[in-house]
Amino acid sequence: MHKAAELARSAAARNEVPVGCVITDKDGNIIGEGSNRCEELRSALAHAEAEAIKKASEALGTWHLEGCTLYVTLEPCPMCAGAIINSRISTLVYGAKDNNKGACGSVLNIFEERFGHRPAVYGGICAEECSGILSEFFKNVRGLSI
Amino acid sequence: MHKAAELARSAAARNEVPVGCVITDKDGNIIGEGSNRCEELRSALAHAEAEAIKKASEALGTWHLEGCTLYVTLEPCPMCAGAIINSRISTLVYGAKDNNKGACGSVLNIFEERFGHRPAVYGGICAEECSGILSEFFKNVRGLSI
Repeated sequence: MHKAAELARSAAARNEVPVGCVITDKDGNIIGEGSNRCEELRSALAHAEAEAIKKASEALGTWHLEGCTLYVTLEPCPMCAGAIINSRISTLVYGAKDNNKGACGSVLNIFEERFGHRPAVYGGICAEECSGILSEFFKNVRGLSI
Repeated sequence: MHKAAELARSAAARNEVPVGCVITDKDGNIIGEGSNRCEELRSALAHAEAEAIKKASEALGTWHLEGCTLYVTLEPCPMCAGAIINSRISTLVYGAKDNNKGACGSVLNIFEERFGHRPAVYGGICAEECSGILSEFFKNVRGLSI
C-alpha cells in the first residue's frame, strides 16, 4: 500500500488527482502498477486501477487475474469496481473511502450484487495516509484557483 | 445501431463475444467505434464501449463527452456503465438486455445511484437483431466445444 501511495504522489506531481494502484500475483510479486492519467491521456478511462489491471494482464498474458490482489489508495468507482469483477481479481485492498463515487461500500457495494464474482475486500487500510495525499492535492488546487 | 451491429459481427468473426459500439457527437457524427477485443488484447478492459469511448475522447481531445450518444448492442456491464458515468456521456442507447451482467436495469440500474451523472437511457432498441448476433455466436461456440 505504501507503493500505491508513492504512485499517488507521482500523479499529484503531474497535476492528476492523486490515486495510485499496485497489483500483486498470488505469490506477492508486483505485476502491475498504475496512477491516474486522465488529464494526460484525456481519457475518463485512465484511472489508476485500469492502468494497473492492463499492465498485470500483459504481465500474465491473460485477462484472468484470479489469485491477484489489487491495492489502491482510494475506494474504486463503479468503472474500476466493474473492472475488478471482469478481471476476476481475488482480493481488493483500498485506502480512503470515497463518499461521492465509491462503489465498494460508500455509495453502493457493487460486489454485493449478483455479477458472478465477489472479491474479498479490505477497506480503510492506511486510510489516513491515502486521504491525506488527496486532501493536500485539493487544498493546493483550491489555493491556486483563488 | 446498425453500425454497432456490424461491429459486433466483426468481433464474432475474430472469435470475440460479439458486442459493437458507436459514439456520436451532439450533431450525430460518428466520433468513436469499438468492438470487443478482450481475447485479442488479453484484457478484461477491452469491451466495445471502452474502445469507443477511448476513440471518441481522442477525437474530441477531451474526456468530457457531454452531448454525445453511445449506441451499444448489449446492455453495459458495471465497468462500462461506470465509464459512461465518468465520461459524462449524455445518452445511452442499447440493444439486448443482459440478465447476467447488465448494470443499466437488469442486475441493477447504476444510473439510479447517486454517482453525480445520469444519462438518458433507451434500452431494447433493435434488441432482436442484437441478441440474435449473440445467440448465433454462442450456438456456434457450443457446437465447436462438443
